Amino acid sequence: MNKVRIAVIGCGRIGQMHARNIDLHEKTTLSCVYDVNSEFAEKISRELNVFSVQNVEEIFNNNEIDAVLVSSPTNTHIDFIEKSVAAKKPVLCEKPIDLDIDKVNQCYERLKGNTIPIQLGFNRRFDPGHQAAKHSLMNGDIGELHQCIITSRDPGLPSWDYLKVAGGQFRDMTIHDFDMARFMLGEEPVKIFAISNALINPKIKSELNDSDTLMIIMETASGKQCHINNSRSATYGYDQRVELFGSKGMVISDNRKPHELKKYNSEYVEKQEPYLNFFIERYQEAYMNSITSFVETILEKKPVSVSFDDGRRALILAEAAYKSVKSGKFENIN
Amino acid sequence: MNKVRIAVIGCGRIGQMHARNIDLHEKTTLSCVYDVNSEFAEKISRELNVFSVQNVEEIFNNNEIDAVLVSSPTNTHIDFIEKSVAAKKPVLCEKPIDLDIDKVNQCYERLKGNTIPIQLGFNRRFDPGHQAAKHSLMNGDIGELHQCIITSRDPGLPSWDYLKVAGGQFRDMTIHDFDMARFMLGEEPVKIFAISNALINPKIKSELNDSDTLMIIMETASGKQCHINNSRSATYGYDQRVELFGSKGMVISDNRKPHELKKYNSEYVEKQEPYLNFFIERYQEAYMNSITSFVETILEKKPVSVSFDDGRRALILAEAAYKSVKSGKFENIN
Amino acid sequence: MNKVRIAVIGCGRIGQMHARNIDLHEKTTLSCVYDVNSEFAEKISRELNVFSVQNVEEIFNNNEIDAVLVSSPTNTHIDFIEKSVAAKKPVLCEKPIDLDIDKVNQCYERLKGNTIPIQLGFNRRFDPGHQAAKHSLMNGDIGELHQCIITSRDPGLPSWDYLKVAGGQFRDMTIHDFDMARFMLGEEPVKIFAISNALINPKIKSELNDSDTLMIIMETASGKQCHINNSRSATYGYDQRVELFGSKGMVISDNRKPHELKKYNSEYVEKQEPYLNFFIERYQEAYMNSITSFVETILEKKPVSVSFDDGRRALILAEAAYKSVKSGKFENIN
Amino acid sequence: MNKVRIAVIGCGRIGQMHARNIDLHEKTTLSCVYDVNSEFAEKISRELNVFSVQNVEEIFNNNEIDAVLVSSPTNTHIDFIEKSVAAKKPVLCEKPIDLDIDKVNQCYERLKGNTIPIQLGFNRRFDPGHQAAKHSLMNGDIGELHQCIITSRDPGLPSWDYLKVAGGQFRDMTIHDFDMARFMLGEEPVKIFAISNALINPKIKSELNDSDTLMIIMETASGKQCHINNSRSATYGYDQRVELFGSKGMVISDNRKPHELKKYNSEYVEKQEPYLNFFIERYQEAYMNSITSFVETILEKKPVSVSFDDGRRALILAEAAYKSVKSGKFENIN
Repeated sequence: MNKVRIAVIGCGRIGQMHARNIDLHEKTTLSCVYDVNSEFAEKISRELNVFSVQNVEEIFNNNEIDAVLVSSPTNTHIDFIEKSVAAKKPVLCEKPIDLDIDKVNQCYERLKGNTIPIQLGFNRRFDPGHQAAKHSLMNGDIGELHQCIITSRDPGLPSWDYLKVAGGQFRDMTIHDFDMARFMLGEEPVKIFAISNALINPKIKSELNDSDTLMIIMETASGKQCHINNSRSATYGYDQRVELFGSKGMVISDNRKPHELKKYNSEYVEKQEPYLNFFIERYQEAYMNSITSFVETILEKKPVSVSFDDGRRALILAEAAYKSVKSGKFENIN
Repeated sequence: MNKVRIAVIGCGRIGQMHARNIDLHEKTTLSCVYDVNSEFAEKISRELNVFSVQNVEEIFNNNEIDAVLVSSPTNTHIDFIEKSVAAKKPVLCEKPIDLDIDKVNQCYERLKGNTIPIQLGFNRRFDPGHQAAKHSLMNGDIGELHQCIITSRDPGLPSWDYLKVAGGQFRDMTIHDFDMARFMLGEEPVKIFAISNALINPKIKSELNDSDTLMIIMETASGKQCHINNSRSATYGYDQRVELFGSKGMVISDNRKPHELKKYNSEYVEKQEPYLNFFIERYQEAYMNSITSFVETILEKKPVSVSFDDGRRALILAEAAYKSVKSGKFENIN
Repeated sequence: MNKVRIAVIGCGRIGQMHARNIDLHEKTTLSCVYDVNSEFAEKISRELNVFSVQNVEEIFNNNEIDAVLVSSPTNTHIDFIEKSVAAKKPVLCEKPIDLDIDKVNQCYERLKGNTIPIQLGFNRRFDPGHQAAKHSLMNGDIGELHQCIITSRDPGLPSWDYLKVAGGQFRDMTIHDFDMARFMLGEEPVKIFAISNALINPKIKSELNDSDTLMIIMETASGKQCHINNSRSATYGYDQRVELFGSKGMVISDNRKPHELKKYNSEYVEKQEPYLNFFIERYQEAYMNSITSFVETILEKKPVSVSFDDGRRALILAEAAYKSVKSGKFENIN
Repeated sequence: MNKVRIAVIGCGRIGQMHARNIDLHEKTTLSCVYDVNSEFAEKISRELNVFSVQNVEEIFNNNEIDAVLVSSPTNTHIDFIEKSVAAKKPVLCEKPIDLDIDKVNQCYERLKGNTIPIQLGFNRRFDPGHQAAKHSLMNGDIGELHQCIITSRDPGLPSWDYLKVAGGQFRDMTIHDFDMARFMLGEEPVKIFAISNALINPKIKSELNDSDTLMIIMETASGKQCHINNSRSATYGYDQRVELFGSKGMVISDNRKPHELKKYNSEYVEKQEPYLNFFIERYQEAYMNSITSFVETILEKKPVSVSFDDGRRALILAEAAYKSVKSGKFENIN
């Protein structure tokens, strides 16, 4: 197997990006694309000169397809994961696995014993800056980790339609930060405290019972402390910072700018342009690296880099966060 | 009154600094110094060529002394504040007012109706960077404040002897951050959650029932969110950052370096020397500005910049933090 | 014409990069590749699944090829440019046009009246940071330009074999900075002073009569001042800075880092990894943007962004620099 | 001798600053002040509660004065230096020694054999950042020095009256950069090329035959290259940067800001306030450190840190720069 032949299921904004990455990646070939809305599939099909299939089963039945990337709506993820596994095709599935933790747990049970690689789409783990932070921690550069601080703010409110179905800020947005926290802490958080509010648009609270601004504190069994803060609207661009503070030092994976032009005049110095606007620009390398990781799992039998269980545990943290918001207590994480 | 004539009570490390600042300040004169340990007083007396008094009452009885700066041990603060007030001398007193909130409340009651200026020694409010942050917020630069994040880490563990009497990390160290939070939030926090641990030296927990590493979340009535993190030991220097995030933007008051030398070689770029080591260096301008503020209250009848009640409320937050650590709950602040 | 079909002549390191970019670019198709050393052509031919031709004439005679990219050895550039023009195929040719200014001038004469687009490979003009600097200047952000300072240092000495045929540091390396100076100054330099030396490896002077370290001052008719400094060996990575200083302010297009990880410990703060190593990494976006510009000239009839004359004038500056090094005088530029 | 008792001659803006520094410095006492315009002397006399003398000879005749600081008009420097030496009082004299190199050379001859310390007021050598750069170079951090780049721009044009008597930009302003170059290069420049122009205000050229914008290249005997650029008007504050580039790396002593507040919104990130406005703010620590150095020469018999000859050589470079501007040649420095 020279190049991994991958089919993309779900051709929305993220699916299109994945399709393009697979087309570009030197170790993958884009086999075909599918979307329940065939227009979406055809658009990317034309752009990349690749087949679009009408029936998703064509993908699972096709022996010339080695693997599947799932970026369809969240409520279809479990089905497509299970179908991929049944067809013995490694699958890279976008987060979250599902908004319903019970369904995720049931799927988890059903998949016990499965050996087909399932990689979850937590792209941020593959960001060069965040990876260098983790690498530095593993190297002992900062000694024992004491505090992990994750600042994660989106550049603007998503549409009301999106918010209505997104599953809530903790499950939809913070889920990435929960995964980042687990990745950096190197051990499971055992307790969580969270507050949330709708400070940007109060209707998000009054009408959707959701939030746009939140803060979290988590603790691990060994006492490591982790803070997460989220906002849906950072006017200055997508704000993505990870700080690891330890007994011997600190590392900060800071924001990226579109270029390094600095401006100076009588009012200011070192003024720069807003940060890269959102995840597709900011995590461009990360998304490509996640494909590389998927390929290495398939071709070199490396262990899965982000497992189904990683996806499940991030969701468990989100559930515990909701519980804490309600109870006002430092909740145990099961 | 051309220059304000000030006596300094308490000539330890901080008292000496204050004495020097009063000597340097163009609007103040150092009248005399006192320390219960006369050696300390005499040292600074010789250095600055100023009288040292043997009996502290000489200060309160002296008509040629306009005001008093108190930097004696914490348990003497209330007494000296009350004596200053009785002698009708404005007083600038180091934080905290006392470690015992009951004593502070009793003093607060006794002082009701008092019109003699009492300024509390929360030096950080006067830091040019933090002041510029507050100014920017007041100007509307960042719109409505949504999140305030205070990172505050000392450069190394204090001595065991100090830790034994310091009154606990929340009362001794975080007290400054509680004041900074109140200063920046512009409204009172109404709820607090806190965790703490001894990750640097476990004996601080096992023997002193104290902590060296902590995290806090507070919320105001209008929903503003505030996170504080503290460590007693940041190897890279005194880490003092304040971030204000709002609906229209963000300001960060960042750390200061001793100079701006950047180093580049095959291993790194833009490497700089550790941050200024501790509060006397880092907040040099702030301490001097706090004298200026004290002088303006006296000479120009400006309102007190940091009041007795500010000192009391910071301590109330510390008490509520201890309660939350015990209960694991989001505690109300009375 | 939907996509511009481009053939690549010369498949060395830069030719391969161009071939990949043309393959990736959404508005271009890689038609075929050619290298006098057919092994090179076949390597990239296999990688990108594209024909390699044995005889370069097949390119010029092929009606299904719309344009040509020339990245063959310098001494073949003029021939391939003229053949492209004869075949009415727009050509994007790597710098320099030739090492011999007389040959360049002769070609220039022969091409008078030509209307087929010829774009020169001065990639740096297309760098987002440098472009933003130029844009800011054109916008009036910095008022009248007074000084332009270009720092340009390669990350390490090239091979001896390369140095022997490169044509000298001013023609091979500084040529980019001459073009950048002209691009930024917005008017022609009329005088130049230059010094050069072999401080990294003295044999470069004693055996090759060449240099590795140099400084230049140029002046325009209106009095604008420009400084260029070059070194062949910056241990900290490819150093590419442009500073524009004017009557109302300044802009600096600064270096790029591979990511934004900053390290802190008892020895340092804000330490970062060396800059991107060399031009292929540093100017990745610039190279791609130069293809876009070439496409816009072809499809939208936009004027050529970097003309043959731009290539010629950069070489004239190099010649004048050599003259100044010899004479020790502020030489006129003809 | 406990504290060095110093008299200040010349109480203009810089003299007043020196008087205050001497008053503050823990190892010096301000003995008295003198200014030919007695009002100036009395102003600072009242502020610092120190005598002002009517006749400057009182200073040289007074046995209770240990040393002299000269900050009177330039054309009086030589006289006061010689009077100090005659009175056996160490002298710290502001730059330049004189605007007339012949007078300086004559004085130099007359002073041969003198052992009374004469320190020149090149304050920048004592700046913590520039000193750290030099220290790093001496330590071998950057290997052999290849290029030194000095950017030095004043925050705004001085008054016309000042310009008329300042002696020309090279002698008045660049003199500091010539000294900095010599300090950093560690060996004498042997050749110089310079251009200058009046780009800010053309009348400076047409009416005063002077300049406001200039560039210089110098070379040492071993081939080290040095670039200086100057402007009289940087809208963004006093721009003072020194870059040392060597075989193993680089150090940059960068600009200082009044504080570290960074602003972020939809238009920009990391925007900061203009740099410290001018030399008294920017070089505050440097001026104080220069007093310390003077004291160490007197009390500890350390060698003079900045000698009369350093002052003379900086002026020789200025003279050679003028010669080069006229001749358009790389001039030898005698």
